[in-house]
Amino acid sequence: MLEYGNLRKNLNPHVSVDCVIFGFDFQELNVLLIEREEGYIEGNSSSKPARGALALPGDHIHEDEKLDQAGARVLKELTNLDNIFLEQFHAFGHPNRVKNEADRKWMKTIRAEPNARVITVAYYSLVRLDRYNPQASSFAKHAAWFPVSDIPELAFDHNLIVMRALEAIRRTLMNQPIGFELLPPKFTLSQLRRLYETILGKELEKRNFRRKILKKDFLIPLEEKQTGVPHKAARLFQFDKEKYESHQTEKYDFTF
Amino acid sequence: MLEYGNLRKNLNPHVSVDCVIFGFDFQELNVLLIEREEGYIEGNSSSKPARGALALPGDHIHEDEKLDQAGARVLKELTNLDNIFLEQFHAFGHPNRVKNEADRKWMKTIRAEPNARVITVAYYSLVRLDRYNPQASSFAKHAAWFPVSDIPELAFDHNLIVMRALEAIRRTLMNQPIGFELLPPKFTLSQLRRLYETILGKELEKRNFRRKILKKDFLIPLEEKQTGVPHKAARLFQFDKEKYESHQTEKYDFTF
Repeated sequence: MLEYGNLRKNLNPHVSVDCVIFGFDFQELNVLLIEREEGYIEGNSSSKPARGALALPGDHIHEDEKLDQAGARVLKELTNLDNIFLEQFHAFGHPNRVKNEADRKWMKTIRAEPNARVITVAYYSLVRLDRYNPQASSFAKHAAWFPVSDIPELAFDHNLIVMRALEAIRRTLMNQPIGFELLPPKFTLSQLRRLYETILGKELEKRNFRRKILKKDFLIPLEEKQTGVPHKAARLFQFDKEKYESHQTEKYDFTF
Repeated sequence: MLEYGNLRKNLNPHVSVDCVIFGFDFQELNVLLIEREEGYIEGNSSSKPARGALALPGDHIHEDEKLDQAGARVLKELTNLDNIFLEQFHAFGHPNRVKNEADRKWMKTIRAEPNARVITVAYYSLVRLDRYNPQASSFAKHAAWFPVSDIPELAFDHNLIVMRALEAIRRTLMNQPIGFELLPPKFTLSQLRRLYETILGKELEKRNFRRKILKKDFLIPLEEKQTGVPHKAARLFQFDKEKYESHQTEKYDFTF
């Protein structure tokens, strides 16, 4: 058991992990944040949070664990999210990244060496928001999803980390079919386009999107249409993962 | 001035940087290694090096420098390579990555805290081998290029780091036109294919390569041909960087 609220043992004071969990809900892209101080996520949420009241789920690594293990453990401890594929994307190590006064004040309540320089190794993931129910524990008072289009000022360099994670996930979305797991097994082209638009944060030209995406032979048109919709029923599609993966192993292809 | 050979001050004992510099020479892909112990790169090079005699250029960060700065400084200090664009690609932090006996023995001669766990932030770069002349200094006894197809057993987890860097550079090569800076300003399709083959470490089917690469509108065919070649002169091409970059800013494109 961790001793919540006290100085915790067995942590490496020099290295931490931070998790940027993006939650997709068909309306917008969200990011999971924790609250270190009471009063914003629940309570007087109409007021602006104090700088650093909100942060990414993150903590120091244990001396005896791997970085990836630390990422999964910390996410679980702070938000109760489990079994999420975390992709390491960048290490952040500016000498002043934990030197802000508000951050230091908070660290003194929880860290054995609050003045140590800390390098953080950052992970991201992209999940369906409705499949996960964040529940705060450890030093997190609350955990909640925030739209990436409206993120308040976060602790440390966490705004920068979110921005870089967003760049990374957008780059990945254009190079790999990572979006399909967020859709139902059978989906329309409109749903697929909406997914891309939501994650990229911009509208895509309909016809252009359709033309380009239909060139992909791992996108399988079905002889089925939507049911129960008020508008004209659209054709359904499936993602053929095996076909996509066979391309990857058979040959390199130029994608730039 | 650093005090070479003595324990060095102002280093953060917990975090290091390592540089994987790939050198392209139209024949093969090479990686820059340093020698920590005499006798392999020059001298009795017919014998196998002791485990850990060779390593990537890497060292601990200074307490007051950014990670990127540390990468550039360390590369310069150990190999005299300067003005190289370093791309951070991964942090390596297995708890046992610096616990090998041969590595510890060496670290005791040079580190203030040889038993500390060390997380390393790794960078890669891809350069034309003939443009750089590595010269060892600091604790590096020698610095030299080694073919990636035949890398000996390296210090710490450096074989793993090289492998991961190779995966990263190959992925980037397929998604971005990073190869063109390694070619002359005017080049043939054969030269371009040879570049891809060298970096990917495999042969590409000629016709397929030609068909795919010619679809790229930033590859400009010239009205010029090779001169002074014994075989039939081939058409020359140019890379239109502005055109490529205009695509990047104008719109996202699907590349998976």
